[in-house]
Amino acid sequence: MARGRLIVISGFSGAGKGTVVKRLVEKYNYSLSISATTREPREGEVDGRDYYFKTVDEFKSLIDYNGFIEWAQYVENYYGTPRKFVEEELAEGKDVILEIEVQGAMNIKSQYPDAMLIFITTKDIVTLKDRLVGRGSESADVVEKRIRRAAEEAETMPSYEYIIINDDLEACVDAVNSVVVADRCKKENQTEFLIDIKKQLEDYTR
Amino acid sequence: MARGRLIVISGFSGAGKGTVVKRLVEKYNYSLSISATTREPREGEVDGRDYYFKTVDEFKSLIDYNGFIEWAQYVENYYGTPRKFVEEELAEGKDVILEIEVQGAMNIKSQYPDAMLIFITTKDIVTLKDRLVGRGSESADVVEKRIRRAAEEAETMPSYEYIIINDDLEACVDAVNSVVVADRCKKENQTEFLIDIKKQLEDYTR
Repeated sequence: MARGRLIVISGFSGAGKGTVVKRLVEKYNYSLSISATTREPREGEVDGRDYYFKTVDEFKSLIDYNGFIEWAQYVENYYGTPRKFVEEELAEGKDVILEIEVQGAMNIKSQYPDAMLIFITTKDIVTLKDRLVGRGSESADVVEKRIRRAAEEAETMPSYEYIIINDDLEACVDAVNSVVVADRCKKENQTEFLIDIKKQLEDYTR
Repeated sequence: MARGRLIVISGFSGAGKGTVVKRLVEKYNYSLSISATTREPREGEVDGRDYYFKTVDEFKSLIDYNGFIEWAQYVENYYGTPRKFVEEELAEGKDVILEIEVQGAMNIKSQYPDAMLIFITTKDIVTLKDRLVGRGSESADVVEKRIRRAAEEAETMPSYEYIIINDDLEACVDAVNSVVVADRCKKENQTEFLIDIKKQLEDYTR
């Protein structure tokens, strides 16, 4: 069986990538990798569904045991992708979605060269700020911090293979799925089929 | 406005590419280029909808006046793509679908390097033969000829960028559309957007 594909989704904080990923998994057939983090749960977040919430000590112990395929520190918190789930799902031929920040995405790409790197963005920065302010859970100070962070992240956007604008949620979700479908149709990923059909034609016309 | 994209669809005779193209235009927002041909209309085919049916003399005259972006001879008949329609639609930003045979597709790619080349195939050759026989309009001799032709066409499959299997019609149509959507999301095709969003962030954080 063909191995599954790793689909890495990053994007500005406030671009709605969490909602996009949630809807993708609902609408299409993807496996979702749940990250581990040391940050505090936001209201409504559930351990094991949104994140695996860990203490700093627990997280550091997992690092020591090679339990993450990537981990990074971001605004004083740790984030990591548990290795076991990802490896098992890929081996079973399932396409796995990871929602991680830029630094992690670059780590993934160096370990999994076939990973598809997708960056989700708002259509402009005014919309980004409006969404961060509208979220309500962030102080004006944190909003400023996140936009400054976005400016840093924008530098890495050219390292992503696909840039998808989240203006309409369903259109954005369908576009992410299209990227995966199109990738499967690429000639380079159809080598076995091409060899097989050529052989059938040779047998037939011999 | 950004120019539209040329989407070139080829495939084995009997792979159902005509039906795929018809459904694509119904379901999504594509312009369809109608080919000119000197072959006899099949039952139910309408001039100006399925093809522009031309005499050999009319066709040769259009060649002389540079009226085709490509033309080719195939099983004793001429086929060509009228230039005017394609150029006008692309200039208006519309994505144009061409259904042409292999030789024509290669001509297009050399003139329009951005054209997307898609090859539609059945999942195997037994299915191809069944469809050709099932069509009923072809003699056993013509079926044999078409399968021998398929063997030649299979040699050119690696020149196509995307290989799409037409097993389930709707899945195949959605896959073709996915290829176009994904292409628009490619970083290389988002250069203006990337420059623009970076400038907005610089202005904001200055």
